[in-house]
Amino acid sequence: MFKPLRGTQDLPPEEMAKRLRVFEVFREVAESYGYQPFEAPSMESWELLTLKSGEDIARQIYFFKDKAGRDVGLRFDLTIGLARYVASRRDLPLPFKRYSIGKVWRYERPSAGRRLREFYQADVDVVGSSSPLSDAEVIAVAVDCLRRLGLRDLTVRVNDRRILEGFVEVSGAPREVSLDVFRAIDKLDKIGEDGVAEELRKLGLEDGQVERLMELISARGDPDRVLSELEQTLRGVEVGLEGCRALRDLLEYSEHMGIGDLLNVDASLARGLDYYTGPIFEVHVRGEEDVGSVAGGGRYDTLIQLCGGRPTPATGISLGVERVVLVMERKGLFSDLGPGIDVYVAPVGAGVGKALEVSGILREAGFRVYVDVMGRRLSKQLEHASKLGVRVVVIVGPREAQRGVVALRDMELEAQREAGLERLVEEVSSIVQPPRRRGLSS
Amino acid sequence: MFKPLRGTQDLPPEEMAKRLRVFEVFREVAESYGYQPFEAPSMESWELLTLKSGEDIARQIYFFKDKAGRDVGLRFDLTIGLARYVASRRDLPLPFKRYSIGKVWRYERPSAGRRLREFYQADVDVVGSSSPLSDAEVIAVAVDCLRRLGLRDLTVRVNDRRILEGFVEVSGAPREVSLDVFRAIDKLDKIGEDGVAEELRKLGLEDGQVERLMELISARGDPDRVLSELEQTLRGVEVGLEGCRALRDLLEYSEHMGIGDLLNVDASLARGLDYYTGPIFEVHVRGEEDVGSVAGGGRYDTLIQLCGGRPTPATGISLGVERVVLVMERKGLFSDLGPGIDVYVAPVGAGVGKALEVSGILREAGFRVYVDVMGRRLSKQLEHASKLGVRVVVIVGPREAQRGVVALRDMELEAQREAGLERLVEEVSSIVQPPRRRGLSS
Repeated sequence: MFKPLRGTQDLPPEEMAKRLRVFEVFREVAESYGYQPFEAPSMESWELLTLKSGEDIARQIYFFKDKAGRDVGLRFDLTIGLARYVASRRDLPLPFKRYSIGKVWRYERPSAGRRLREFYQADVDVVGSSSPLSDAEVIAVAVDCLRRLGLRDLTVRVNDRRILEGFVEVSGAPREVSLDVFRAIDKLDKIGEDGVAEELRKLGLEDGQVERLMELISARGDPDRVLSELEQTLRGVEVGLEGCRALRDLLEYSEHMGIGDLLNVDASLARGLDYYTGPIFEVHVRGEEDVGSVAGGGRYDTLIQLCGGRPTPATGISLGVERVVLVMERKGLFSDLGPGIDVYVAPVGAGVGKALEVSGILREAGFRVYVDVMGRRLSKQLEHASKLGVRVVVIVGPREAQRGVVALRDMELEAQREAGLERLVEEVSSIVQPPRRRGLSS
Repeated sequence: MFKPLRGTQDLPPEEMAKRLRVFEVFREVAESYGYQPFEAPSMESWELLTLKSGEDIARQIYFFKDKAGRDVGLRFDLTIGLARYVASRRDLPLPFKRYSIGKVWRYERPSAGRRLREFYQADVDVVGSSSPLSDAEVIAVAVDCLRRLGLRDLTVRVNDRRILEGFVEVSGAPREVSLDVFRAIDKLDKIGEDGVAEELRKLGLEDGQVERLMELISARGDPDRVLSELEQTLRGVEVGLEGCRALRDLLEYSEHMGIGDLLNVDASLARGLDYYTGPIFEVHVRGEEDVGSVAGGGRYDTLIQLCGGRPTPATGISLGVERVVLVMERKGLFSDLGPGIDVYVAPVGAGVGKALEVSGILREAGFRVYVDVMGRRLSKQLEHASKLGVRVVVIVGPREAQRGVVALRDMELEAQREAGLERLVEEVSSIVQPPRRRGLSS
């Protein structure tokens, strides 16, 4: 018996329906902010993928040689393909606001926190603006999406890579190990303070430097207070103060966008990818912190140039679709999903032709109509309809069909009555409503 | 400068929007027939992928060893994962009608017809029914979807693998080379009759057998006439007659579904995959035959058992998304797509706070609202809005904002007027309509 590969999963209808809801709401919210759809390929050259991902990620990339002997890999996020695209398209009107929903692959030990090696991300990015207004906006899009999905109790942790750089300078640690220091700090949630301190010592930092760094990153809480403290601590350290100024602007814009009260500064927030250069942020659901962040991102002002493009600032945020689904499940937010089928049409005996006609009528009226294709006896069909969780069964027998009537069965009330074809849509509508639809072209 | 890998493509907004329309209509139509969403992983074990794909496909699979040394590959279609899933889920209520939209990968020479090595497929399958009613239904779903996308002039070519098996028997060729014979016939469109004959001779067939086979597969046209001919030709060849009977049933059900007049029997239709066992079918757009089939599929009654499951009949059809897009482009069916942005909000001077508030109001009303995040002067913003193709620009200056008004600019008419905030939604609606939305949970 074959199974899905370790770290990959099948998504049966009830699971897929949850993800489709997340995608749909994400897409609508992103579009409501004027973000446009964009998609890059699932695979890229190895050289591109490892440009600025960081060692930890590089080790997790699914790597292979294609049949022409090229080194290629599966994408580990949706950002790198966007950066490559923008770098190559010098005529692109900027800022480019895009959204993207797609699978990414990371070869992680399934034991280590995230079980999945293939999973969905849903991203919004603004390319071409260095203003913290764009950082605030991508956060707002994520928050708006999560709220519309029913997750209302959110916090947003923010930090700035330049504040962390300032910390390295203040601690007296050598600047060359900055990225390693950030990677060590990023593991705080996984390995704890002692673990991070140990990692820092392994990088060659002196005890005093490690102690100072651990103290510096402990600042967190109310943005105004923490930023004032940090501005004191980082006095004279220009890079750090730049980070503070960016966060102050970000905070101000967030207030205009109605999400200012969600923001907390967390000086220990580092994020795992090497390409971040400015503000970084994570969204958490209060009371569900064990899941980790449900969205995260940051500013990456050098990546597009690294990809061969002009210097182009950019920022973005990524929704962790599986985590969002997990939290929504815990909160019972999928209870209204239903079976995805409104009516089960059961042909009996030689009633198939008429049953197909009846199905067409109901479909025209917007119902999702399952027709039995087995030629089974009625009891089997009712059993099947019940397993599928369908509320209404329309039974079409040859004699009834000749008289222009069908039997309408309400599976919940276990009630059955005859209905004329001309009133069928009306009668079915009195029990179930067809789903609302997006606009179609015809 | 990095480029997408050969055979892969970036999908910028205007291209992505086309595919999203196809996906959306496909999903709605599939759901209207009671099909439920299902998704399998993008990668599977090598052993599974090569079970019954056929040599040509096996050569095209993106293969690699994962970090644990397992032989794995990227899926080449959406069927194999479904078959594995069904095989492992013995409690699954049958028939299982599912739809799936996803990327597949085939390493083909980009020169050879299909340029892309990574592309989307959109599939519907019925698992658990051996009735030609289910074959007719998956064809009907594809036809309905294509029609709703605006492709009305369709033909459906049908054949049955058992008819081809019958041909092998009638020709006197050895049964062991049947699959090789089908693969050769499948190349007819690419290499022509002489090419196929040549391939058949290479398989060791005698000249007389080759000649007979070429004559047999030339039968095509009106189903009634062709089937009568075939029934004559295949007299006494039970497997072939079974195929004829299935096609007669398929034809009858198709008539009930209102697509009977689209069907033609084409005895040369073979399809490239080894797993087909019964009816096979392809949908073409009349006058666009050079593109090839826009949808294709067939019955695969042994695949699930091969995957370790119980004997379970199944049938399905796959939409070639790129080909559908190509034909729709030729016919101008995307002319209504628009820029995906309804309103461009342009903050001027210190008007950012008010601009964000105004954006929120318009967003609430259902508009897709792009806010400039650059702090640029108005002329630059208008230029950008024009490049994006946005019809309405709302200009928010600090003085106007204080008076509770904004400037409303119709980019098409090049007309500008003042509008009070309380009447803004109404005024904007008089120029552009917000898109209709699918139902949201909140």
